[in-house]
Formats: sequence, C-alpha cells, structure tokens
Amino acid sequence: MKIDGVPYRSIWPSSDGETVEIIDQTSLPFDFQIKRLTNCIEAAEAIKVMRVRGAPLIGVTAAYGMALAMRDDPSDLNLTAAYYQLLETRPTAVNLRWALEDLRARLTPLSPNERFAVAYKRSGELADEDVEINRRIGVHGLPLLRAVAERQGKVNVLTHCNAGWLATTDWGTATSPIYQAHDEGINVHVWVDETRPRNQGAFLTAWELNQHGVPHTVIVDNAGGHLMQHGEVDLVITGTDRVSANGDVCNKIGTYLKALAAHDNDIPFYVCLPSPTIDWRIGDGVTDIPIEERDAREVTHLDSLLENGQVAPARVVSNGSAVANPAFDVTPSRLVSGLITERGIAQASRESLAEMFQQDRVAAQ
Amino acid sequence: MKIDGVPYRSIWPSSDGETVEIIDQTSLPFDFQIKRLTNCIEAAEAIKVMRVRGAPLIGVTAAYGMALAMRDDPSDLNLTAAYYQLLETRPTAVNLRWALEDLRARLTPLSPNERFAVAYKRSGELADEDVEINRRIGVHGLPLLRAVAERQGKVNVLTHCNAGWLATTDWGTATSPIYQAHDEGINVHVWVDETRPRNQGAFLTAWELNQHGVPHTVIVDNAGGHLMQHGEVDLVITGTDRVSANGDVCNKIGTYLKALAAHDNDIPFYVCLPSPTIDWRIGDGVTDIPIEERDAREVTHLDSLLENGQVAPARVVSNGSAVANPAFDVTPSRLVSGLITERGIAQASRESLAEMFQQDRVAAQ
Repeated sequence: MKIDGVPYRSIWPSSDGETVEIIDQTSLPFDFQIKRLTNCIEAAEAIKVMRVRGAPLIGVTAAYGMALAMRDDPSDLNLTAAYYQLLETRPTAVNLRWALEDLRARLTPLSPNERFAVAYKRSGELADEDVEINRRIGVHGLPLLRAVAERQGKVNVLTHCNAGWLATTDWGTATSPIYQAHDEGINVHVWVDETRPRNQGAFLTAWELNQHGVPHTVIVDNAGGHLMQHGEVDLVITGTDRVSANGDVCNKIGTYLKALAAHDNDIPFYVCLPSPTIDWRIGDGVTDIPIEERDAREVTHLDSLLENGQVAPARVVSNGSAVANPAFDVTPSRLVSGLITERGIAQASRESLAEMFQQDRVAAQ
Repeated sequence: MKIDGVPYRSIWPSSDGETVEIIDQTSLPFDFQIKRLTNCIEAAEAIKVMRVRGAPLIGVTAAYGMALAMRDDPSDLNLTAAYYQLLETRPTAVNLRWALEDLRARLTPLSPNERFAVAYKRSGELADEDVEINRRIGVHGLPLLRAVAERQGKVNVLTHCNAGWLATTDWGTATSPIYQAHDEGINVHVWVDETRPRNQGAFLTAWELNQHGVPHTVIVDNAGGHLMQHGEVDLVITGTDRVSANGDVCNKIGTYLKALAAHDNDIPFYVCLPSPTIDWRIGDGVTDIPIEERDAREVTHLDSLLENGQVAPARVVSNGSAVANPAFDVTPSRLVSGLITERGIAQASRESLAEMFQQDRVAAQ
C-alpha cells in the first residue's frame, strides 16, 4: 500500500541483494523510520521488540533472518543456532515456526555455499505468497462493500485493532477488501476503533489508512454500538488470531462487544483470515481457546506524543489500583456473518469450514 | 466516603462559616488538592473547568456560589448577576438550573441583610438532601449484592464511568450499594471500566474505591464482555444522565455495549438514579434523546502522569486522522434489569415508572 503516495511493503529485500529492510513499527505513528536488518541478530531483535508484528510478517522476517545467518556463516551449526535464536523471539507465533521449519528443511540438504542464495530467494517467495493470499481475501470480500455502495452511494465499515497491511507483507487481511474498494473508486469510509490497551487502531490502522488516502475516523472503543444504532455502520470487518473448527473467532479483546452490537442492529459482521488461522484441533473456541493475560503496564501506560515533540510512556490509570489485561476474546460463531478467506467466504460453522478446507483439515489431523 | 481513612464529602462548608471547600477533581487521580471557594467567581470557575462535576454536585456548588455572592453584595442586582453568572457555566445541566432557581426564589423576598445566612444554610440542606437520596439508592440496591454474596461468598460488580461519590455530595449513585455492601462486610470486588475517552473510570472511580479500601480492578472498556463470558461478573451497575419515560437509559458512551454483553450472558444490568433524572417528556430514549458530540481533543489527548512526575496532555491517536467523539449512548429498556431509585427498584418500563413516580410525572406535565 502507499505511504505518502509511494507504494511500500512492510518488508523488502535491499538493493544490495543481501540485506532486508523493514518499516520500524515501534516508531509509528508519530515517526516513520526504515530500518535495515543486516544480520540474524538484528532480525531476531526486530521480531522480539515488535519492530515487525502480525503473524504473517513475523514469519517472513524470520525467514530473512535465516538467510542473513547463512550469508555470515552457512555451517550446519549456525543453521541450527539461527533456527532456535529466531524461534524463541515470539514462542507462540504459529507462522514463525512454520516459516523457520520450511527454511531449515530446504537448507539442511544443501551444501553451505548454496544456502544463502536459496534462503534469500525463498524468503522473497514467502513474502509474495503472503501478498497473494491477502490480495485474494480482498477479492472475495470486495463484493460485500461494492453491493452496499451500489445501493446507497457509499459504504461505512467499522474495524477493530490492526489487521492491516502493517501486520502482513501487504494488503492486510481485514483491510484488503477496503483498500481494493478504495482503489476501485468505491466511496468507502472506515470507523477505526482505537483498540485499547495498545491502541493499534488509533496508532497503526489510522496511520495506514491516512497514508493510503482512505477516508476514516478514529473513535474510542466505546462508540461503535452507538454508531450502529444510528445507521452509521454498514459492515463490520475484523481480522482474527485463531478460528476454531466450529467457526468461533478469537481476536483482539473487544471484538465480541462489536459483534454483539452488530447482531443487535442487523449489521453484517465479517472476519478476514488466511486459512492457516483455522485451528482444526479446537472444537469450541469460547471454552477451549486459552486467552493470554498480558502485562498490566500495557493498560496503565501508553507511548504518547508529548507537547515538546518527544514520544514517551504516559500513565493513564490511577496509581494504586489493580489492573487486569486479557488480550483477546472469543466471538461465538452465531454472531459471525461469514469468514472471508483466500478461497472464498465460508459460513462460520463446522460444516461450511470442513467443506471449504477438507484437505487442510485432514492434513492437520 | 473515606480518603486515606478520613471521611470526606466532595463539598463542605469551611470552618470559618462563610466560605466552602471542594476536592479539586481536575488534579485527580495523580494529586489530591482541596480548594477553598471564597467568592461567586471562584465557584463559577470551579464548575466551568470541572473542578467539580456530576449533576448533583454541580447543583450544590452553584447554590454555595449564590451564598458567596450574597455575602459580598446582597443587593437585588447582584442576586440576578450571580444567578446568570453561575447558570452559564454548564448550560445543559438540569440540577444547576434547579438549584439556582430554588435559591433565587427563596432569597428574592428577603431583605439583603438576611440573604447570606439563608443561602448558606439552604446550600447545606441541598447537600444533605443529595446525600440522603444517594444513601437510599444504596439501601435499595444493597440486597442485590447481598443475595449474590450469600450464595457464593463474594460478588463481582462491573461499573462504567464514574457514578461515584465524587459526582455527588457523598455515596454516589452506582457506587452507593457497593460502598454499603463493603461497609457491611460483604466481600465485594469491582471491575472498573477505564471509560475512554476521559478515563473517568481509571481516574476517578478507581481512585475513590482505592481510597475507601474497596477491592477493585481496572480494565479497558474492551474487556468486560470477555469477563462476563467467563463468569467473572455477577452484576453490572451504572449511573445515568437521563432516563426516558419508557425506561431507556442515556449514559456515558459504551454503556450500551456492556448492557448487550450482560444480556448475552444472563447477567443482571441495573442502573442507579435519583428520580429527577427521569425525563417524562421523552417517550423513546433511543430515538429522542439528543447525543452531545464533544471535542475531538478529548479522544486524541489525555492528561497523563509522565515519568518525571509531571501531569501533562499526551497525544494517543495518530496525527492526521479525523476523530469523532459522541459522549453518550442510549441503552434500550429491554436490556435493563431494573432502575434503582431513592424510592425503590422500578422496572425499566413506562408502566412501572409511572406507578412509582405518579406524582412527579403529573407535576412535570
């Protein structure tokens, strides 16, 4: 997508053909910094401190980290060392492990002097595959927006958190239909949930949409229900971290509240996902998906722009009170209008998912 | 309620018998300051910049403002001047106008040299009446908490915004049953919604409960639905700014989302109010209560505690994005389990409200 009129991805090979560049997301939205990753340690650090975040982008960055390791020392020993160094940056990220295992399996049989070139090329292919999956999610979601716009001349979409292109290599998941609608000239406007506690909506989604020129309005997480009551939202579209086999949707905390409000006001609620997000081993998402409890400091402090231009942590909760920080919630499938994947739109049900992804389901068992 | 073990009200007559003292709420939660109001201008300023806020407390402060004006110049001219000076501080506050009209009607027939003493005494009576109304709201709400605690040994209440004692003279509305339960030895714990954009939950409710020693946990507004899904909330209790004749509840933005989640999880959702909050002229709250759209800066900036100990505005939204800030929403009566008033608990219906408040309804017509 575009930044100030120039097309970007969130990660790309440098012109020197042997390093890789990223947008440093820790400096967004108040500063735009490109960072070159020149070795495996820098790639691991970038994942760990969240200069890159979002499951697909973490996977691609880890693959490039393996490539950089092979450039510096293509020995078997360093192949193993790099694998574990990168794996432990975000222990629970499924795409991270998947990408690293893909690279290790391809590189191990090769002679050391072939390894860098193959790893670097394969990392680029993983990036391209991610872009294509997200593009196709957008292709399948676009008609939903187009239909509303044809009926009433414009379409208002509400989204929660950042399932945008910054969380992937390009397009994003929830934002892919939105960018494609905008690029096609459809009059689309996005309500951007702030998404406390980490403000990924107000920080990242707002920044993305602003840079690409998509009309949007930031609102506090409390406001969506009121807007839906008053006809200001035509469609809710979010991303997801994990979908259970019966179609329950685990996503950033607060998604469930928006799904309830959409349901109460007869507004369609769609979820965009690449199909590996479906966890076939989990039958009931509401009871069986474990919810990560994160650090209270994410709630009490926020990196903010001060009036002197400095970005610094600011405390936004009274001292002396206990704080809880569940990071995700699960929206029951009954509240989900459809799951927009790279293969098409599935119903949020065991039967519909099984039908669309028969082979994947068998492979995972 | 108590601050650091010492009982306080939010406003009280000074020991000199001719001025009044308030807790300066603009400095909370990061600093505790008492401010003496010595003349009408200072009283008006305190209301205008929200050193005092909450409808009942604004009314009492305005009454004291009239008294202070009468001490300095008890002429008819100054009586009229003070009335308008105080009235225009918060033009939409119903209690403000009511208190000022009460004072003006009582003072006008008196000779100037009687006016200060009568006004000062009447202001104290208004404060006492407010305390008594809120105490009775608590008396009627307390059995709801006691019943849960008797069943399971403890009771978890979720509340939104600040309908606490800082918004009234004492007890608060939504917090009145909570304080009474705690003081009676019931094991009550409160989930405190942060309440973006102004963080009245994280700033004021958390501070109040902490000072009085009531166990509580601050959460982002997004978290309540997840907690309800997992049995962590027994009861939701909020305040309200206006209730329509059919029982729809206008309250701080985001209340509707919590009511939906409570309903989806079979959790009782109660609203506490002094009966003048009922607006008999409004039949359908969802369509007919106008919703104030407030300044975008309330969303983009938050007065925060910086690491150097300074309190300063910090920007928490990406630059360059539009922002919307609807301040209230309306929860339809079908989602409300009951309205806890100083006279008892009414159903959220036209019939039940009319029955409990027959006389008031007639008087308002």
